[in-house]
Amino acid sequence: MEAALGMALRLPGPVPTVCAGRTDAGVHARDQHIHVDLPAESWREHGHRLQLRLNGILPASIRVLAVDPAPAGFDARFSVRSRSYKYRVSDRVEVDPLLRGHVLHWKRRLDLSAMNEAAAALLGEHDFAAYCRARPGASSVRTLSTLEWQRDADQLAVLTVTSDAFCHSMVRALVGALLSVGDGRRPVSWPAEVLASRRRTPAVTVAPGFPLVLEQVEYADDLAAAADRARRYRGAMIGGRPVAMKPPDDMVAPADG
Amino acid sequence: MEAALGMALRLPGPVPTVCAGRTDAGVHARDQHIHVDLPAESWREHGHRLQLRLNGILPASIRVLAVDPAPAGFDARFSVRSRSYKYRVSDRVEVDPLLRGHVLHWKRRLDLSAMNEAAAALLGEHDFAAYCRARPGASSVRTLSTLEWQRDADQLAVLTVTSDAFCHSMVRALVGALLSVGDGRRPVSWPAEVLASRRRTPAVTVAPGFPLVLEQVEYADDLAAAADRARRYRGAMIGGRPVAMKPPDDMVAPADG
Repeated sequence: MEAALGMALRLPGPVPTVCAGRTDAGVHARDQHIHVDLPAESWREHGHRLQLRLNGILPASIRVLAVDPAPAGFDARFSVRSRSYKYRVSDRVEVDPLLRGHVLHWKRRLDLSAMNEAAAALLGEHDFAAYCRARPGASSVRTLSTLEWQRDADQLAVLTVTSDAFCHSMVRALVGALLSVGDGRRPVSWPAEVLASRRRTPAVTVAPGFPLVLEQVEYADDLAAAADRARRYRGAMIGGRPVAMKPPDDMVAPADG
Repeated sequence: MEAALGMALRLPGPVPTVCAGRTDAGVHARDQHIHVDLPAESWREHGHRLQLRLNGILPASIRVLAVDPAPAGFDARFSVRSRSYKYRVSDRVEVDPLLRGHVLHWKRRLDLSAMNEAAAALLGEHDFAAYCRARPGASSVRTLSTLEWQRDADQLAVLTVTSDAFCHSMVRALVGALLSVGDGRRPVSWPAEVLASRRRTPAVTVAPGFPLVLEQVEYADDLAAAADRARRYRGAMIGGRPVAMKPPDDMVAPADG
């Protein structure tokens, strides 16, 4: 994307981007947002034609759905209010070969009500250290507003998970813990016990990334306030001396889901 | 599939198969049926376990959804009453990268009512020579029972096409002709004029195969009668001297759609 932007804008090199969800390799996104800082005359010169031009340069695995000037104070990463992912698992039917790039095959039947009972105990604000890859100095406190499995029309088990932000490997570790409840290997109480321990355990298998899709990004109403916080934090980082080793939670790397 | 069957049945080599729709390379199938001839004791020994075993051997691009003994007289190819395909085109929105393996991107907006008006003139029994790759001695008369475009929930233009059988490249040639009506390059009357000419024309662009999916196969109620016809035809072929250079239409290669 950064190289394509450079080409589309007739610049000599890639253009640095900031994106809403910095997912792991293999994780998909249907609602990704990025921002780039451009001189006003560059926007006047290229404008909305950038969309077509970018799609002509990018591979079919990346499509630009819209290009617009950002509202004042907008930051694709730090202005985010919530991120919603879906994780799709096929436990009753064989995976449709046409969807095999983003649907996990699970050999045992999943009990969605058991998984949802276990999931309910993880909702709200918690220290998710047990489900996060540790990052020195970074908080692992997050607020989960949705964590719910449903059957879709094609009999797939689909998890919807929404939070202000996620730490590294968090969604995939949560999925791994819930799958082991769903197929009966662990009791319903187990994922909450792991959470309470605040320690990572090899008993939680981190589920693969390819069935995970960033589906929806919501931005804060008050972009200016979010931008202000972001600007202070960023300014400090640019100066080389972070003002806070533990930045406010909404500024922590949203990471890989 | 034939190699996998040989392995699953512990045979020294591949097992010959007969399938419902012999689609071109790149064309997908969600409702494919194949039959194999096995000794009764082989079925008794392996039975329904074949499904799991085959899926363990086959790549994820091929899934076996069921394995069953065939009813008397069943022939996966010759007992077919109708084959239904869908062809998916994205003309209003960018192609969802997760679906890019089976959705065509079309740069111009498509007028579905114009396409459907043109399609209606092709319904019924016709000699589709203008839309078929010629095969010496084979009839190109087919009966189209459905040829209709609809918008799906994701704004895709989806063609449903149903026939007793298709000749080589027929569906893709029909799609090419209808697309040129849909984006305004040809008048509504043109596809029927091409049909009436009974001659292939380079003006009809054969659309790519990857957005075409065999979605539904229906079998004749009277399998025995179908089997009888098939047996006579096949017997003749096995003897090396076909009894009919122009076999009945339902026995003509269903080919690639």
